[in-house]
Amino acid sequence: MLDMALVDDIIMRALKEDMPMGDITTDSIVDPHAACTARLIAKEAGVLAGLQVFERVFRIFDPQIYIETYCSDGEKVEAGTLIMHLSGNTRAMLKAERTALNLLQRMSGIATETSKFVEALRAYSTKIVDTRKTAPGIRYLDKYAVRAGGGTNHRYCLSDGILIKDNHIKAAGSIKEAVERARAAAPHTIKIEVETETLQQVKEAVEAGADIIMLDNMTTDEMKKAVDYINGRALTEASGNVTLDKAVDIAKTGVDLISSGSLTHSVKAMDISLKFE
Amino acid sequence: MLDMALVDDIIMRALKEDMPMGDITTDSIVDPHAACTARLIAKEAGVLAGLQVFERVFRIFDPQIYIETYCSDGEKVEAGTLIMHLSGNTRAMLKAERTALNLLQRMSGIATETSKFVEALRAYSTKIVDTRKTAPGIRYLDKYAVRAGGGTNHRYCLSDGILIKDNHIKAAGSIKEAVERARAAAPHTIKIEVETETLQQVKEAVEAGADIIMLDNMTTDEMKKAVDYINGRALTEASGNVTLDKAVDIAKTGVDLISSGSLTHSVKAMDISLKFE
Amino acid sequence: MLDMALVDDIIMRALKEDMPMGDITTDSIVDPHAACTARLIAKEAGVLAGLQVFERVFRIFDPQIYIETYCSDGEKVEAGTLIMHLSGNTRAMLKAERTALNLLQRMSGIATETSKFVEALRAYSTKIVDTRKTAPGIRYLDKYAVRAGGGTNHRYCLSDGILIKDNHIKAAGSIKEAVERARAAAPHTIKIEVETETLQQVKEAVEAGADIIMLDNMTTDEMKKAVDYINGRALTEASGNVTLDKAVDIAKTGVDLISSGSLTHSVKAMDISLKFE
Amino acid sequence: MLDMALVDDIIMRALKEDMPMGDITTDSIVDPHAACTARLIAKEAGVLAGLQVFERVFRIFDPQIYIETYCSDGEKVEAGTLIMHLSGNTRAMLKAERTALNLLQRMSGIATETSKFVEALRAYSTKIVDTRKTAPGIRYLDKYAVRAGGGTNHRYCLSDGILIKDNHIKAAGSIKEAVERARAAAPHTIKIEVETETLQQVKEAVEAGADIIMLDNMTTDEMKKAVDYINGRALTEASGNVTLDKAVDIAKTGVDLISSGSLTHSVKAMDISLKFE
Amino acid sequence: MLDMALVDDIIMRALKEDMPMGDITTDSIVDPHAACTARLIAKEAGVLAGLQVFERVFRIFDPQIYIETYCSDGEKVEAGTLIMHLSGNTRAMLKAERTALNLLQRMSGIATETSKFVEALRAYSTKIVDTRKTAPGIRYLDKYAVRAGGGTNHRYCLSDGILIKDNHIKAAGSIKEAVERARAAAPHTIKIEVETETLQQVKEAVEAGADIIMLDNMTTDEMKKAVDYINGRALTEASGNVTLDKAVDIAKTGVDLISSGSLTHSVKAMDISLKFE
Amino acid sequence: MLDMALVDDIIMRALKEDMPMGDITTDSIVDPHAACTARLIAKEAGVLAGLQVFERVFRIFDPQIYIETYCSDGEKVEAGTLIMHLSGNTRAMLKAERTALNLLQRMSGIATETSKFVEALRAYSTKIVDTRKTAPGIRYLDKYAVRAGGGTNHRYCLSDGILIKDNHIKAAGSIKEAVERARAAAPHTIKIEVETETLQQVKEAVEAGADIIMLDNMTTDEMKKAVDYINGRALTEASGNVTLDKAVDIAKTGVDLISSGSLTHSVKAMDISLKFE
Repeated sequence: MLDMALVDDIIMRALKEDMPMGDITTDSIVDPHAACTARLIAKEAGVLAGLQVFERVFRIFDPQIYIETYCSDGEKVEAGTLIMHLSGNTRAMLKAERTALNLLQRMSGIATETSKFVEALRAYSTKIVDTRKTAPGIRYLDKYAVRAGGGTNHRYCLSDGILIKDNHIKAAGSIKEAVERARAAAPHTIKIEVETETLQQVKEAVEAGADIIMLDNMTTDEMKKAVDYINGRALTEASGNVTLDKAVDIAKTGVDLISSGSLTHSVKAMDISLKFE
Repeated sequence: MLDMALVDDIIMRALKEDMPMGDITTDSIVDPHAACTARLIAKEAGVLAGLQVFERVFRIFDPQIYIETYCSDGEKVEAGTLIMHLSGNTRAMLKAERTALNLLQRMSGIATETSKFVEALRAYSTKIVDTRKTAPGIRYLDKYAVRAGGGTNHRYCLSDGILIKDNHIKAAGSIKEAVERARAAAPHTIKIEVETETLQQVKEAVEAGADIIMLDNMTTDEMKKAVDYINGRALTEASGNVTLDKAVDIAKTGVDLISSGSLTHSVKAMDISLKFE
Repeated sequence: MLDMALVDDIIMRALKEDMPMGDITTDSIVDPHAACTARLIAKEAGVLAGLQVFERVFRIFDPQIYIETYCSDGEKVEAGTLIMHLSGNTRAMLKAERTALNLLQRMSGIATETSKFVEALRAYSTKIVDTRKTAPGIRYLDKYAVRAGGGTNHRYCLSDGILIKDNHIKAAGSIKEAVERARAAAPHTIKIEVETETLQQVKEAVEAGADIIMLDNMTTDEMKKAVDYINGRALTEASGNVTLDKAVDIAKTGVDLISSGSLTHSVKAMDISLKFE
Repeated sequence: MLDMALVDDIIMRALKEDMPMGDITTDSIVDPHAACTARLIAKEAGVLAGLQVFERVFRIFDPQIYIETYCSDGEKVEAGTLIMHLSGNTRAMLKAERTALNLLQRMSGIATETSKFVEALRAYSTKIVDTRKTAPGIRYLDKYAVRAGGGTNHRYCLSDGILIKDNHIKAAGSIKEAVERARAAAPHTIKIEVETETLQQVKEAVEAGADIIMLDNMTTDEMKKAVDYINGRALTEASGNVTLDKAVDIAKTGVDLISSGSLTHSVKAMDISLKFE
Repeated sequence: MLDMALVDDIIMRALKEDMPMGDITTDSIVDPHAACTARLIAKEAGVLAGLQVFERVFRIFDPQIYIETYCSDGEKVEAGTLIMHLSGNTRAMLKAERTALNLLQRMSGIATETSKFVEALRAYSTKIVDTRKTAPGIRYLDKYAVRAGGGTNHRYCLSDGILIKDNHIKAAGSIKEAVERARAAAPHTIKIEVETETLQQVKEAVEAGADIIMLDNMTTDEMKKAVDYINGRALTEASGNVTLDKAVDIAKTGVDLISSGSLTHSVKAMDISLKFE
Repeated sequence: MLDMALVDDIIMRALKEDMPMGDITTDSIVDPHAACTARLIAKEAGVLAGLQVFERVFRIFDPQIYIETYCSDGEKVEAGTLIMHLSGNTRAMLKAERTALNLLQRMSGIATETSKFVEALRAYSTKIVDTRKTAPGIRYLDKYAVRAGGGTNHRYCLSDGILIKDNHIKAAGSIKEAVERARAAAPHTIKIEVETETLQQVKEAVEAGADIIMLDNMTTDEMKKAVDYINGRALTEASGNVTLDKAVDIAKTGVDLISSGSLTHSVKAMDISLKFE
């Protein structure tokens, strides 16, 4: 569930960007008291995310708007599905439309792509997770959309997860030293993840007591060996340009998690349309 | 050129989102005085956009960082191209990396896609333009990236362009009435564009004195007829899920502009990587 | 119509400025539950603008306040006119009063001055327009007030209008070159205006295809010649310390627009008073 | 002296308002590396205020700009005076110009008007003070400009001065009760001012121990009587549409202060121009 | 009374700090429609402050929450007192709890400590006042809490009080000169306070016409002499690590005010607990 | 290490709160070009935290200020220790002083108190950790100060730690169910902590696979039994009004962590003074 107190800030920023001096077309042409009705319709199949956000944008312009919603976030819809019915002030509707759609289409695009991984991995215990590769300023929405699509979130940011990368290891001298420093300094509530590229590094990470081991850019063969070696002593995460068609092969290695940056950095907006009646 | 006074706000927002309580991994492990060197490398061919923004993120963490830049915005690079060389504080580098890359990769992704249209349309007078379908909060960067890719911008927002859509026409009663209201009320500095779906509407728009006529979701045959009818009395803009492969056929109709929402609503991040040495 | 989503930010800023630590007089003296009634009265003749804004300030302090409004924005009122009746919490009333009046008086002052030009130009086709010479931070309100007074707006800002000034011409080498660069780079939705000071420049501007030609600091004779020369090939705008008494003479030249910075940079607040009963 | 830490916020807000998406004219036409020189010249006589603010706007766009300043805030200049010389990046200059001038012209307009009162009152001990009738969001600058013009400031806001008005008196039941409540509740560092309209009220205010007594909308005869009665037991402040020509007569009554809302609510911008060379 | 328009900003900042990406525990576990009831109970005796603020935090998450409040700000309660009853959405309750308590506990801690001074000084005319030593960003609440505890406020900030310290005196050359400069330049609505450390300085301050004289770090003997010397010609304020047990002795010197930084810089949070049923 | 990009926002907020309209005392009295020197001295023994923040406040007012720092964050100093030497503009120094000290004194107070626990627990493996009971708006600084004092941080906020409390358990029906829901929904990077009050709950938490078990308000006997029962299968955290003198007894139970809200909710500011020379 999204907390609207956090979302309003994003919406207001988007609105100020989209109409710093108002909507000159609508205000010139449309009667201030005119009312209209519109239907929100999926133009293609996909998984919805962001319906609350969409609705909120309209309510900012018309607090009295009447809205009926027939679907919910996380729901898979077919092309042609009627998602929402809105009746309210015409000026409000026209001003809210684009900003509301921009948010909904992006979020639903993320949810849709995520759900494809979820479906592909249905027979496996492997989960799909996101990354920090989100659009600047709207990570809260991007991460929510991944959850709506059935995925789970990786760390939200640099403050709430420990991910020891190549360069941290170099700076510390060894994986062991890096893990020890992190364990000593960071909150005890956070697991320690180590990025590895070779089996040798995997071994060092296990010995250092890593809670999660990222297998970065490995072949499925290497992954399989790593997973077997780790043998439950740490969570395993496959990473590195994972595409949908590689996902199943990766899952077969027994890896716990697959992370994919493209879920949020290369979003294809879901085609959803607002039809005025 | 980007005005950094406008960009800093976007960057600071992204940084606060990415490290509200600092970077717990880096601060735990890396010596505060450690220094390192990194190279920014294109992992795939594409058109760059956002190098200034990228650099700025690093300077926020390390004002003394030494940076040499070998490419510039709008430049087409091949996979493997060395774009930038950075030497500075290791902690700063690690903290800036993701936010800087998120911005650069998205912007370069937009520029790259735009440049494909530009190239396809090279032999024609038709220009590719963007829409308001940008990521909320960073439209300034999205629109800049389109220009870096060789495209031109459509209106920035609801305050600076008049686009009379279907619903405005209904509200006014006719295209003629809508155009007249807009002309009477809106700044004289702004052209009046009318969205049309039929040749009949095109005729009405011309008669109403529209400066720009959008041909929305027409077949190329219909477009051709419309362009011929308009015959230079207004600018013409083709719109409606235009893909790269349809672009040339559309251009052949003689239309002045093709607008594409997907340039910014469905961005594929360009693969650019920061390699630490 | 003003969008309150955009106005609230201005009001909150004004309130924080006016009472960062509360209203120490009112909170010391007035019972928190006391109620009172007040009438908003025009102390001099003028054209109103900002009634919605005025009301909003009071509602922030007392959402239950009862307000009846007898006039509307753009309405010309005589001295003594009862504009609004307010009944609500006394503390709220006293806290809101000054900020609300500051906004209303300035906006009505702008509308009133604008309306004088509109009246003077009634017999002519010439329109009065504003400039970017507004009070920093409240341009949205200043520009709205001009419209409420019957004027129309010039460009809102540097992002939504092209005005090629002397210095741009120098930088480009010629008017022709400057116009070409602007046409190539800027959104097609925006007209190109060129500032001229001599008939020679007017000719160059026409040849370069300028959409609007500003006749800057010309005598009415020169203007007349320029308008005749242009002969409808571009909109014409008279500019340069235009006063009310010069406006009619200027209009007689046939110029399309007169722009006046003083409408917003040298505002005489309209005398409007809140009388407690 | 202005604290730039407080001013930057105002400037940035003004810049975002004036170029949310950049300066499309300048960026289209002017070479990014072009440099130019400009002179800031007073087009009419007046008292300057805001030179630091003016300069700051330019430095935001071009930190390397070379500026020589020949005048200072509070200085009276004649028409034609060269105030400042600027050499720097042309794009920066063109982008900063309007925002910088808007601030400087308003502030100098306030200083100029204030200085006229100061001059008129030179032979008297009466001081001219401002009010809270300032432009929303820039009170810090408006109040500074009054000081630059030789005036002094009344309270800055509702949090830092006690001004017991008619309505507070009604709410408390009597002047005596109102003053007592204020004295009990408000900071001991702040004087208590009471607004009076009749000699009877003046007497009550003196008896209640008011530190300052405002003589609101009185004739000079009434004022004279009030000042004589008060006889130094409280500061006296004349208020109510005081114009420059009435000021001397008022001063002759021996009143300590004259407050004038029009200093800041009805500003005539000083004509100052930036000439590019 | 607190103005919620000023408080919301503080609350929103606290909420964004406490849940930038939502509440992952609650959203994972608790049904979105679950409701619950909770009682706010004092776990120790104290004086309450901040009940409105507390309530507001909950309303942000659940506008329909049902709240009954049995106490009010400034009220002294015993351990075990039921302060408030809340019934509403469980998720909302859990998300609001900590932020609401952080605010209420701090504010009540300040009120409680202040009230101890007030009680100790009951038999004397000496008042207890606070300082600018508040927690950064929430001074409005800290100062309010002092008032709720029965104290009065010293100046709110550097803009609304004149306090001439040692260093100002050095800069001016003498107390006399410093006071004169302040009187000439600062608003007439504000009293002039001078910090003194010796009787000699006290004499100079009286002669200079100081309105308030701070007796800084003096023994009670010295204070007594100073108060006697001043003899009502100025308000007197004792300052310098005043503890509760020294307060009465200080009050006996006849000093008007005792200021204590520890009221706000060293707050012991009052133990108040939210019990879910 | 603190990231100044995150700290500046806190400082600017504090400055605007402390001088919304400037420093009227200093600006009235002190020559703008006067310079002075000051020494920062510990008036009592303690552990420092916030020296960077302190310095930053001064640099905002005087970028050229010369500062020599003799101590560092986390250092234990005796009363009388010279911490820093500053030479710069007098006005800048006087304006920065209070805000800088407010921050430094609070942070050092937190560090000092934390270090007492650290010292008391030296012989044990038990660590002292903080809570979310921080001052609203400055948690980043509060948490840093705990680390500077030798403590470690508990979760930063609701978004980055899972703490299943009594009420979450009720909502889920059982500890087992609550843990399962959290594990399924929350990021895999975050450990799951369960709050328990009885040994029975401890057992359920272990069985449910909790990573951390909070022993809330238990006697040391109960804690001992719980720790023995858990026997390394989860981290253990003692919680509930832990005072310094109880800490050692608690540590003897073998518990891994002691959390203390009072470290940040009931801070005694460290006495540090800026002496002008």
